[in-house]
Amino acid sequence: MTAVGRSLPRIDGLDKVAGRAIYAGDLHLPGMTIAKVLRSPVPHARVRRIDATRALALHGVLAVLTRDNLDVVGRSFGAYVRDQEILASEKVRYVGDMVAAVAATEDGIAAEALKLIDVEYEELPAVFTIDDALKTDAPLVHDTLDNRKDPGYGRGGSHIVHDHSNICFHFRHERGDIQEGFRQSDQVFEDVFHFPSAQHYPMEPHLCVAHFEACVLTVWSATQSPFPVRQELARIFGLPFSAVRVIVPHVGGGYGAKSGIKTEAIAACLSRRIGRPVKLAFGADETFRTICQPRAKLVVKTGVKKNGTFIARRCEVYLNGGAYANSGPTVAEKAGYRAHGPYRIPHLQTDAYSIYTNTVPGGAFRGFGGPQVAFAYETHIDMIANRLGMDALEIRMKNLLDKGESFSSGDTPIDCDLKAGLRRIAQAIGWDSRPNGETQSDSKRRGIGIATAMKDGGGTNKPANAAVTIFNDGSVLLSTGSVEIGQGMRTAFLQIVAEELSVATDSVRVAALDTHYTPFDKGTNASSATSVMGQAVQRAARDARRQLLEAASAVLKAPSSEVRLDNGFASHGTETISFREIMQRQFRDSEGEIWGRGYFKVARDKNVPLGYLSPFWEIGFGAAEVEVDSETGEVKILRYVSLTDAGKMINPLQCEAQDEGAAVFGLGQALFEDLAYQDGQLLNGSLIDYRLPTFEDIPPSFTTFIMEGQGGPGPYGAKGMGEGGILPVAPAIANAVFAATGKRLRTVPLSPDRVWQTMTEKRQG
Amino acid sequence: MTAVGRSLPRIDGLDKVAGRAIYAGDLHLPGMTIAKVLRSPVPHARVRRIDATRALALHGVLAVLTRDNLDVVGRSFGAYVRDQEILASEKVRYVGDMVAAVAATEDGIAAEALKLIDVEYEELPAVFTIDDALKTDAPLVHDTLDNRKDPGYGRGGSHIVHDHSNICFHFRHERGDIQEGFRQSDQVFEDVFHFPSAQHYPMEPHLCVAHFEACVLTVWSATQSPFPVRQELARIFGLPFSAVRVIVPHVGGGYGAKSGIKTEAIAACLSRRIGRPVKLAFGADETFRTICQPRAKLVVKTGVKKNGTFIARRCEVYLNGGAYANSGPTVAEKAGYRAHGPYRIPHLQTDAYSIYTNTVPGGAFRGFGGPQVAFAYETHIDMIANRLGMDALEIRMKNLLDKGESFSSGDTPIDCDLKAGLRRIAQAIGWDSRPNGETQSDSKRRGIGIATAMKDGGGTNKPANAAVTIFNDGSVLLSTGSVEIGQGMRTAFLQIVAEELSVATDSVRVAALDTHYTPFDKGTNASSATSVMGQAVQRAARDARRQLLEAASAVLKAPSSEVRLDNGFASHGTETISFREIMQRQFRDSEGEIWGRGYFKVARDKNVPLGYLSPFWEIGFGAAEVEVDSETGEVKILRYVSLTDAGKMINPLQCEAQDEGAAVFGLGQALFEDLAYQDGQLLNGSLIDYRLPTFEDIPPSFTTFIMEGQGGPGPYGAKGMGEGGILPVAPAIANAVFAATGKRLRTVPLSPDRVWQTMTEKRQG
Repeated sequence: MTAVGRSLPRIDGLDKVAGRAIYAGDLHLPGMTIAKVLRSPVPHARVRRIDATRALALHGVLAVLTRDNLDVVGRSFGAYVRDQEILASEKVRYVGDMVAAVAATEDGIAAEALKLIDVEYEELPAVFTIDDALKTDAPLVHDTLDNRKDPGYGRGGSHIVHDHSNICFHFRHERGDIQEGFRQSDQVFEDVFHFPSAQHYPMEPHLCVAHFEACVLTVWSATQSPFPVRQELARIFGLPFSAVRVIVPHVGGGYGAKSGIKTEAIAACLSRRIGRPVKLAFGADETFRTICQPRAKLVVKTGVKKNGTFIARRCEVYLNGGAYANSGPTVAEKAGYRAHGPYRIPHLQTDAYSIYTNTVPGGAFRGFGGPQVAFAYETHIDMIANRLGMDALEIRMKNLLDKGESFSSGDTPIDCDLKAGLRRIAQAIGWDSRPNGETQSDSKRRGIGIATAMKDGGGTNKPANAAVTIFNDGSVLLSTGSVEIGQGMRTAFLQIVAEELSVATDSVRVAALDTHYTPFDKGTNASSATSVMGQAVQRAARDARRQLLEAASAVLKAPSSEVRLDNGFASHGTETISFREIMQRQFRDSEGEIWGRGYFKVARDKNVPLGYLSPFWEIGFGAAEVEVDSETGEVKILRYVSLTDAGKMINPLQCEAQDEGAAVFGLGQALFEDLAYQDGQLLNGSLIDYRLPTFEDIPPSFTTFIMEGQGGPGPYGAKGMGEGGILPVAPAIANAVFAATGKRLRTVPLSPDRVWQTMTEKRQG
Repeated sequence: MTAVGRSLPRIDGLDKVAGRAIYAGDLHLPGMTIAKVLRSPVPHARVRRIDATRALALHGVLAVLTRDNLDVVGRSFGAYVRDQEILASEKVRYVGDMVAAVAATEDGIAAEALKLIDVEYEELPAVFTIDDALKTDAPLVHDTLDNRKDPGYGRGGSHIVHDHSNICFHFRHERGDIQEGFRQSDQVFEDVFHFPSAQHYPMEPHLCVAHFEACVLTVWSATQSPFPVRQELARIFGLPFSAVRVIVPHVGGGYGAKSGIKTEAIAACLSRRIGRPVKLAFGADETFRTICQPRAKLVVKTGVKKNGTFIARRCEVYLNGGAYANSGPTVAEKAGYRAHGPYRIPHLQTDAYSIYTNTVPGGAFRGFGGPQVAFAYETHIDMIANRLGMDALEIRMKNLLDKGESFSSGDTPIDCDLKAGLRRIAQAIGWDSRPNGETQSDSKRRGIGIATAMKDGGGTNKPANAAVTIFNDGSVLLSTGSVEIGQGMRTAFLQIVAEELSVATDSVRVAALDTHYTPFDKGTNASSATSVMGQAVQRAARDARRQLLEAASAVLKAPSSEVRLDNGFASHGTETISFREIMQRQFRDSEGEIWGRGYFKVARDKNVPLGYLSPFWEIGFGAAEVEVDSETGEVKILRYVSLTDAGKMINPLQCEAQDEGAAVFGLGQALFEDLAYQDGQLLNGSLIDYRLPTFEDIPPSFTTFIMEGQGGPGPYGAKGMGEGGILPVAPAIANAVFAATGKRLRTVPLSPDRVWQTMTEKRQG
């Protein structure tokens, strides 16, 4: 292969670092106005009255939008449940809920106008935590939940509706007989874990520019789901799809935050009202109050034989979904499906809940529920090994699924060698000669921990479409609905197209995303780009190749089966002509184009728990060596080893960067990140107060291994990756801290105060 | 028909009048700089030295581009001959030729910087007029013309190359035996005419924004030929087509001026150099110095029988093409082909020349050589009638081609009833009771004149492509490369698509034009949109309809031949479902789209003079009643009647507006417009000095008749129109002036001084 497998520089890289890349926020349209949003200062209240009179009187204010003049066909939206309103009407449900919006000629005027909007709130009792929200007499975040969808699961998965409660969504996954499993076990262990709510922290906040013309509503949005945004805008305004155009310029990171409507509906409402383009750009503080990773409480109970063999596992996954469902239900479902880990467990019962509280809504986040459950099951397995007096590596090796074995009956078999992966990280970190508990100085102790985690990758059974055009000069353009949110996927696609068409990579370009033109796609998520969309891309390229061969066959007067394509040239016998010549001779100079189309969709299957086959298994194995300062509680990562399986690396450099990026994301959640609340007020929702990993926090020794097991469904055996690396970080570090200190932490992040406190406690795990 | 034939308001109308429509000049990109161009102050000179040192030192100047740092693969360009350079290197060839360009942070700085560029010119002898340029010892505008193309004509048309002369292009069209024809004639008349050089005067000047990223060069341009611009930019910079993206926002008028590269190459060069977006917007004064209608000298010699029957005609068409070929050769070719008018003439010989001079380059202009030749042959025929003592209506009726008759052997037969059209305008203007020569007062005299003109419409044998998408909600998007330059064609296309798909017009939209996505097109010209592109549009809609019927057939479980489509619903027997339901049931909710494709191309035919069949015949008949003030020479149009044939009106309101617009264009050239030069300096190249028709000049009685002869090749028999109306205006008015005053004017515009001077002369025609 000439194009695939090469570490081609990212096609968007140079323009991004040189500052030439244009983002939605860079746009300035004539007459454009600036919008700002007024947010609820209270966590739960009835909105008695909104008076915009004073704001409207301010010079430069063009419109104030409230529940009273919203004037749309559909005022509610939501990916799973339509429980969120464009602007709050009856109630506000968290601090940050949007109540009104202003469009003004200048940013400062819009900000000033917000202060002049008078809102009268009647405060209501609120709930913030999972435990409080589940109490029988808990105040309800939503009175009615009558529009909850039935996802239509297959065998082994079910959706249980809890009316008149704060349970937004409940997914059950079971097999075998959980009680019988515990009876057959020699010992049963139960542990409770807590995982923080993190912020996606994309460099670019949520923003869009909307221009509502009579003819077409155009929205330039920093979104990772342009077609769902189109669909929602069409529904909200009662427009045909053809009258809504969503354009996605370069996007400054997504990580799940940029799925679904964020700023678009408000900006479009204002633009329609005033007849001018409207920019609505959230500040970082507002992005913090828009969407987050759901905080989790996890209960894992495992029955084992004396030799460490797993017999039964019961998992309870409680996700704090915040005030609105968003994609929280899907996160709960995925977290539930993955909650028992990549192990052979005959008897299984999992209940996963997404729970409403009066906090920032939770939803899709890199890892999609995986980091929460991986922290639980991988710390739990370490604790079991310790209790049984077994080696933590050995107990994993004993229970890990083999390649080809079922994770869940009927679902895609395990598509790589998990045990080989585990051996590799154990060897790399020096498991056999580990220094656990050794004291480096008076107060500093070192330890090594490992973790093996897995998630079903590639998302749901969404369709993938791609189009490949061969222009008259033989150059090639690819168009797909996958959004480049920094994962490098456009470069990988370009390599696939170049490979399939036998052309140089520098004659291939990837078109900008525009819902008027780009073939339909449901959104960019679940590490699906290369593995799922990649198949549509490959098929579109092959469709174009077939047509190119036909043209070459006509020009060379040879059967197309005898025509060879190589590096932009077609040959038959001794005759060789360039693709450009083929195009021009077959379709006339400058006139003809070839259009190739590709479609791929994961199969539905009612026999598997989620109702469709998992496209592939994304793994994330990690090993850490830490040094814990017993005086301060500070945890320092000395070495970190990450391992995943890419099936086949289309672009090795990008694969490594994706895995490194994922591991650093995990590091943040393991050590620092947490959205802190007090009485429903987010305390650290700003760039200053929220602690992220910096370059100083990167372990001095940081290694990424990428296996190429060829087991993926994608082109050339490729699998998705880029989320696996996040999964094992917190448990690997927590296990290393235990190894170093003998103290077990069941809650991340492992902040110094929490570590120090645990080290001074008596209780042991 | 429900959608076609209705006067639907223009889909771009509301947004344009409300100021919401975005033009290329409205764009503001981050870091965008402003470019300005330095132009030659002399008509012909060798450029000895260009020193940009002082300009570059000016604060805010980012780059000065000259011949010395252009750094492109191809520095010359041109639609027919590549005789023009992005920036002049060795020589400048007219006052306004571009020598250098500046990019600066602000408009004022760029303007200031231009003054600081030192250029040393060595002046050369120059030629400005056709007669001077054709002298044997005339200075040559271009020393070498070795890259002149052979257009490859068919029988009856030929291309004669004149080396070492100022003849850029020479087209000959002949049939019969011209000398024999004159011998057979009872009388032979020869007259010489002059037609002015007009400015297109689009409301929006030439401009673009170029953003040269590492990945893709994107140009937002006010162009009517985005794909040729892409092709030229790709060649100039050595890029694949896939790396050049030309986007066309709303365009503020074209009229032929906006064909080909204008500002794009310079802006792109500057953007590449400085790594920032560059806007280059010509002022109106620069647009005047960029492209114009070729000034014409015309010699028509006709042999007639005593009864007025035409036997032979010899035409000489000399077009002043200015300093660069541009599309002047094609204008000459078309003018030549049309030069004898819509008459039966057995013996014919035409020579048409495009001639280089040191003046503003001439090129495509609404009518494309037709107004020049129509003025000649329609004034000439009036003069013949007068000399023979015949009625000017009668001599035309006698010689006009019949429907189905050949204009030229083998070419498309005449596709409408010319005589019926002539009768209609004669009746409307009151030909039989005309007041010719009547004195209204001491000095004012009234007269009536008519003219019948025709041009081959629909352009060359360019291909037309269109794509029709049916989205998942049943709504429809059309994509074609035809540029909406004010002619209303997008609305007509929308109506065709709605008609073919049996959907409401308000569910159809027309996509914005983007060469990365829009199917290939060669440019918008020659009244080709509805008649030629319309066929591709119709075919694309039919292709989509076929797929929709297949889907409906599957959903309704009925043979597709039995499924009826009506107003967005499909029915079979008693069952009726919406297109939305069909899409969602057949392709799953929100996922599937239907893509229809349409292609049409006029056939090549080596047996006809131009080598391809004329798509249709565009006619323009006019009748005018004028009042001439013998004291001032002022010509006032009291009544004007215009008539054309649309074949079938897709949108009657648009058709009428197109014909009215064309007639007013003709009025300007008949009465006011002319680019005046002195020593090669354009004297009236500004909005203030150039006299255009205003609303006050519109005749108090102004009627448009549109025949629907069903004879066109377009959808439902439609023909192109919008240029026909311009053709007969000048001769109809000149003939009316003769009728009023007995004085014959062989030169337009009929400015008061010229009319007054002629009225005081002795010579008669």
